[in-house]
Amino acid sequence: MGFLSMSGSELKQKKAELEERYRAFQAQGLKLNMARGKPSVAQLELSMGMLDILNSRSDMHASTGDDCRNYGLADGLPELRKLFAEMMGVDDHNIIVGGNSSLNMMFDAISCAMTHGFEGCEPWGKQGKLKFLCPSPGYDRHFAITQYFGFELITVPMLETGPDMDVVEQLVANDPSVKGIWCVPKYSNPTGLTYSDETVRRFAALKPAAKDFRIFWDNAYCVHDLNDTPDTLLNLWEECRKCHSIDLPIFFASTSKITFPGAGVAAMGASEHNLAVFREHYSFQTIGPDKLNQLRHIYFLKDMDGVKAQMKRHRAILEPKFRIVQEKLEQELGGKEIASWSKPNGGYFVSVNVLNGCAKRVVSLCKEAGVVLTAAGSSFPYGKDPDDSNIRVAPTYPPVDELEKAMDLFCICVQLAALEKLQAAQ
Amino acid sequence: MGFLSMSGSELKQKKAELEERYRAFQAQGLKLNMARGKPSVAQLELSMGMLDILNSRSDMHASTGDDCRNYGLADGLPELRKLFAEMMGVDDHNIIVGGNSSLNMMFDAISCAMTHGFEGCEPWGKQGKLKFLCPSPGYDRHFAITQYFGFELITVPMLETGPDMDVVEQLVANDPSVKGIWCVPKYSNPTGLTYSDETVRRFAALKPAAKDFRIFWDNAYCVHDLNDTPDTLLNLWEECRKCHSIDLPIFFASTSKITFPGAGVAAMGASEHNLAVFREHYSFQTIGPDKLNQLRHIYFLKDMDGVKAQMKRHRAILEPKFRIVQEKLEQELGGKEIASWSKPNGGYFVSVNVLNGCAKRVVSLCKEAGVVLTAAGSSFPYGKDPDDSNIRVAPTYPPVDELEKAMDLFCICVQLAALEKLQAAQ
Repeated sequence: MGFLSMSGSELKQKKAELEERYRAFQAQGLKLNMARGKPSVAQLELSMGMLDILNSRSDMHASTGDDCRNYGLADGLPELRKLFAEMMGVDDHNIIVGGNSSLNMMFDAISCAMTHGFEGCEPWGKQGKLKFLCPSPGYDRHFAITQYFGFELITVPMLETGPDMDVVEQLVANDPSVKGIWCVPKYSNPTGLTYSDETVRRFAALKPAAKDFRIFWDNAYCVHDLNDTPDTLLNLWEECRKCHSIDLPIFFASTSKITFPGAGVAAMGASEHNLAVFREHYSFQTIGPDKLNQLRHIYFLKDMDGVKAQMKRHRAILEPKFRIVQEKLEQELGGKEIASWSKPNGGYFVSVNVLNGCAKRVVSLCKEAGVVLTAAGSSFPYGKDPDDSNIRVAPTYPPVDELEKAMDLFCICVQLAALEKLQAAQ
Repeated sequence: MGFLSMSGSELKQKKAELEERYRAFQAQGLKLNMARGKPSVAQLELSMGMLDILNSRSDMHASTGDDCRNYGLADGLPELRKLFAEMMGVDDHNIIVGGNSSLNMMFDAISCAMTHGFEGCEPWGKQGKLKFLCPSPGYDRHFAITQYFGFELITVPMLETGPDMDVVEQLVANDPSVKGIWCVPKYSNPTGLTYSDETVRRFAALKPAAKDFRIFWDNAYCVHDLNDTPDTLLNLWEECRKCHSIDLPIFFASTSKITFPGAGVAAMGASEHNLAVFREHYSFQTIGPDKLNQLRHIYFLKDMDGVKAQMKRHRAILEPKFRIVQEKLEQELGGKEIASWSKPNGGYFVSVNVLNGCAKRVVSLCKEAGVVLTAAGSSFPYGKDPDDSNIRVAPTYPPVDELEKAMDLFCICVQLAALEKLQAAQ
């Protein structure tokens, strides 16, 4: 029965019932965490073979002849540049492979534009008050970078097809202070949706008022399928080539969720014009990336087939977890008219929308019973969800039995918060 | 016989003799490189045991309980923070261990000050035209960072005791646009000298006009002794504590020349005030450093005794090379009044001063005979040695037999350039 059609006494009875179940959870003294998109211990075990893949008998040379133990090779190992190129759909020679963090490469790209600017343009830091587009709900750490650098964050609604391109086109075409947009185009954080072909084409066809407007295309989940009906993302690089807009996008990816989150390798892809700016920046910033970790990755993953095989092993661990989330949500919340949620074919998150004004309360109820969720609002600019409705569920880290408990509690809390709201409204 | 006392015909005869030797070198078709301070292949072999020190049976946890394979631990492994603290003479909790490059940490520190500034101060990038002090000869990559960020580079003469502190004190005390100074306090690049106790005390006692003036203390060669009479460096951290000037210095070090140049770990040390600024910066820039490489280092080096033992093995390889350089210089150039050179007890370089106006010519003569040296002038701001006199010799990379040849050629070129100058002056 839908909660919205319940009478006062029905609401009261339902609430009493749920409160009892809630108290039982509290009594268990749980300590579970579904806050961040962290791979589980079982997933980490999948890459243990990479640890000692280099040893005293290994060939330590890149295909260039460079000794990977010594300084040099600022763009990274050619073999790994090729692998990332394939993964990201960008040409080999347009890839730089860096350290362990793609977030770091994004931060550095923004920082570089702030102090030095894109080719032929004033540094962003000297252009006065600037704006950055944030499709929301989106990735909090993206938004945080541009907030740290003083941008005004502009919320762009996320539709089923990706960011609302009517809004994007209008803002980008008319306002030269709009300098960029954050995108997670495949299995988007947190909605899990993939941008439609039309959305990608419209990105390639953007006609920005600012010559130094850039699309930050964080393809973090490009190979992270969860079932037999994976999404496909149109290749923005190819589309931009067709539109003669190859300087628009900057691509990012990493192996953080392929091998080790703390010790993966990250890469960026961009046009020659953009790379010229970043290469200059890197030439002052470092004498070169950790090429031994790059070599480890090449020996371990080998090629795209190796990556796919590894991702199948991840999927075997993750698919049951995402199934539990869907089953629990459907079973406990289905038909009650108090929540809707995404059903992603990949990625790391399920996005749940509860009744307006209830998200914070749900997160707080969960916390008081020992389950930490991502802070409500964190998927929005400035951490403020205007509807206080969106919650990001990250089911990857907890083991299955803990996940089941956490989801049971979560569903109870969603209902309790809804009942509190409905009672208050009566 | 000193060249300066030679008659015209003596100069002519000497030159003919050297030209013949030079041509003999050219005929050999050498291809040697003494340009950069790169460890040799034999040195890289010393750390091969670190490669497979982590395997599927290893404990992957830090002493905090954190799984080093996953995200987190922004300050780095406590075990490694402790080791760097000891190496750098700074307290454990004032250390952040980062990625593979201390240069990267220095760059980021400057970049952070440019866009965000030190506590309570305007970002450097908003303060107009700024200056940075560059004790010269010094490290080209240091100077390059501040040049990239638009600083005016101010040359400070290097004395036997370190930077000329009369000049430093005067500039720092009177000019609020002077924001920092680059220092390699031990076995300085390229002179190999170590700052005297008095110099360190005077650094701690600086009274800068700018509240956001900082000392960039790159202790790159802190454990890199080459013989039984190593230099000792007074601890700036302790001295600053005594002077209540603990916010002045920022310390840097790395294992690039202890384990692997491409795959070491780097650290910075600073006061709580300074760390607050950097920690905020890092909290946006990354989800954490590569902790597996940190763990590898702890398992391999263990503690300060382990570091010292490793450095003894490096010394066994390097000491003969530095001896060759001194012997060749003494043998070929001694008493000729055309060159002087440093006799370092550690570090990676020997600094040679040839007759004024001759350094570029020496480097060019060497190059034409197949030996690449660091570009003349590169140890000075803007790559310009006002005297065109200083040449940095980097003897670590070539094997002994190649180094001997390279030094023979170098000494011939120093004499040829001197003779050319003396003949032209007659």
